[in-house]
Amino acid sequence: MTATSWVEGADPGPYGLAHLPYGVFSTRKDPAPRIGVRIGDQVLDLRALATGQFFLPWIRPAFHEHDLNALLAMGPPAWRLVRHQLTELLADRRHRDQSATLLTPVDKVRMHLPFRVADYVDFYASEHHATNLGRLFRPDAEPLLPNWKHLPVGYHGRAGTVVPSGTPVVRPRGQRKTPDGPVEFGPSARLDIEAEVGFVVGVGTDLGTPVNPDDFTEHVFGAVLVNDWSARDIQAWEYVPLGPFLGKSFATSIGHWVTPLDALAAAKADAPVQDPAPLGYLQESERFGYDLSMSVRWNGTEVSRPPFKGMYWTPAQMLAHMTVNGASLRTGDLYASGTVSGEAADQRGSFLELTWGGKEPVRVGDGESRTFLEDGDTVTIAATAPGPDGSVIGLGEVTGTILPAPN
Amino acid sequence: MTATSWVEGADPGPYGLAHLPYGVFSTRKDPAPRIGVRIGDQVLDLRALATGQFFLPWIRPAFHEHDLNALLAMGPPAWRLVRHQLTELLADRRHRDQSATLLTPVDKVRMHLPFRVADYVDFYASEHHATNLGRLFRPDAEPLLPNWKHLPVGYHGRAGTVVPSGTPVVRPRGQRKTPDGPVEFGPSARLDIEAEVGFVVGVGTDLGTPVNPDDFTEHVFGAVLVNDWSARDIQAWEYVPLGPFLGKSFATSIGHWVTPLDALAAAKADAPVQDPAPLGYLQESERFGYDLSMSVRWNGTEVSRPPFKGMYWTPAQMLAHMTVNGASLRTGDLYASGTVSGEAADQRGSFLELTWGGKEPVRVGDGESRTFLEDGDTVTIAATAPGPDGSVIGLGEVTGTILPAPN
Repeated sequence: MTATSWVEGADPGPYGLAHLPYGVFSTRKDPAPRIGVRIGDQVLDLRALATGQFFLPWIRPAFHEHDLNALLAMGPPAWRLVRHQLTELLADRRHRDQSATLLTPVDKVRMHLPFRVADYVDFYASEHHATNLGRLFRPDAEPLLPNWKHLPVGYHGRAGTVVPSGTPVVRPRGQRKTPDGPVEFGPSARLDIEAEVGFVVGVGTDLGTPVNPDDFTEHVFGAVLVNDWSARDIQAWEYVPLGPFLGKSFATSIGHWVTPLDALAAAKADAPVQDPAPLGYLQESERFGYDLSMSVRWNGTEVSRPPFKGMYWTPAQMLAHMTVNGASLRTGDLYASGTVSGEAADQRGSFLELTWGGKEPVRVGDGESRTFLEDGDTVTIAATAPGPDGSVIGLGEVTGTILPAPN
Repeated sequence: MTATSWVEGADPGPYGLAHLPYGVFSTRKDPAPRIGVRIGDQVLDLRALATGQFFLPWIRPAFHEHDLNALLAMGPPAWRLVRHQLTELLADRRHRDQSATLLTPVDKVRMHLPFRVADYVDFYASEHHATNLGRLFRPDAEPLLPNWKHLPVGYHGRAGTVVPSGTPVVRPRGQRKTPDGPVEFGPSARLDIEAEVGFVVGVGTDLGTPVNPDDFTEHVFGAVLVNDWSARDIQAWEYVPLGPFLGKSFATSIGHWVTPLDALAAAKADAPVQDPAPLGYLQESERFGYDLSMSVRWNGTEVSRPPFKGMYWTPAQMLAHMTVNGASLRTGDLYASGTVSGEAADQRGSFLELTWGGKEPVRVGDGESRTFLEDGDTVTIAATAPGPDGSVIGLGEVTGTILPAPN
């Protein structure tokens, strides 16, 4: 039987003892951002624990930082020790009276960006998403480009505009052009989302040292939800030949809570068989993805349920590909899966796909009709994963509301 | 008449009193990286000056940092004050005896990355370069794509692999495919350079606030030489549809010395008239580029002299474009011009162009023939600019030697 926590209401639940995601929070009384772990609807203050001599001396300094980066850099031995100690503390009822004073309800805290983002890379790893976009953009050609099944296509995004869930998103302005029309400037008229899963690098590498996919868990600390907001009209005009730029760089939202890979052990799932077989550097001894069930709510209405499980390229393959040329990793590197889209029409992770290029509106909120985002709209992406013994853990959510473009 | 420095041999010369570029250095005796200013063949230790109560109290802390970022963040008033004080110190012979002890010959110091790179963006601003690449890659079509004259095309590169001049570059491995051949894996066989000029952002902006091109000098601190090493075979196979990724991300070299924009006042030069006229957000009250004369040496042989002066898009336009969608700037953001190529065959800033896709070898070093880089090859990019009163300042150089790919 799985251990449970003494924190009231935590077990069973999405933030039970088997989960323990990390975030950075502050309170009105103490506005200094500090690391917390979520248990049920409470945040446990890890800086306070460290001050009280909890954790081994060499690990404690990480909890006096304003973000997760120092803990991330310490690597798997520290990650496991901390998780083990927190599990014991939150399970053993004898700690209850003392530790309960270090809990703050999650609705009383302010959440910050959990880690300083070093480089941000976005992949394109869902076959259904890539196929849908191929059909929409190149209706007369093969939907998948020739390279797609040989390598996880990806590109660098703007690390400086990664923002925490809840940050309002100002509608970007920019250039756009329809095939027969003039070049125009104005607020994006095709503002979209991309529901993605991001992976957070803890242990960096030196320049010139590729990472084997089997070493995925030696480098990657955990997972976080990502909404890679996209202005499709800006993107369509600018992206040839150097890829997306301003159509993406105005904002990328990430969740408040980073779920350690150790909490996703029960969510490991077979990944699709690849045909053709990938080159050697992309071959995994144990090939696996994660069985995350995502949900996209648009003004409160669930419009899509993208399954992460079927992603063609796994997180380990993305990591191996990103470094095969010798590119170094840094603590805080974030790489995201690209839009998670399943095969079914109600499993698409972008509105471009969901409304088939804006031609098939969806109903949202109080019966309103939408193709792309309107000012004031709110999108919330959430996900759950299997936990141990039939439990379900929640990967939190990433949410944002669209503000009008400036005049 | 221009003032001169008491430092022997500094004036006239590329690092005379009118230049004063900043870098980060250490010595064998004191291995802590610290900020220095270059004067002639000497480095003046600004941390030591700050310790001695030189500089205003609010500025001094910037010189106790290990990189330029704190100084960059202080903005133009601090930049001007420091430059003014250093000019006085190095001009007035009464300071000679005391300050000479703070000088170290440049060949006795170790140089470091001058600033922590936040985001790295690479543009594509030379019309000749874009046209050459269009002719090479799409011989049967219009060489310039439809968007090229409407916006400065750009993309994000990998900030974590920006390295200081002199860092060896390990030949990257990766996937490649010829049109009729199989997908192969191995060391890049078409390793190339891109001779570029980079601009370093000092003063950041908040999310949602575009920068007017006329505010260029309020945000940008200075210029630095850039070599954006490129593996053309990897790039050609991977870049559709999301742009260059591993073909670039293995290394980007930058010069050791950041030249303040104030030192480039005499180098300001008219930029080409644009047709069609750009959209309003790209229009400058005073349109200017910089008259930088670049030189590319391959194993000691000068193979190209790219002129920065004729770049179609100016640094101010690149900055305005990069932020028009509301993307924020951070201290340490680096944006580069893209390959600087002039009209003439001996003005091309990449070997892909210089050897016309590898079909026209060039002579380098001791009479050897080259199309792309071989192991052991060294490339050095340098630049000069007009200084005040007919003087010439040197923008230093960025150099690197190719090491073999790992087995």
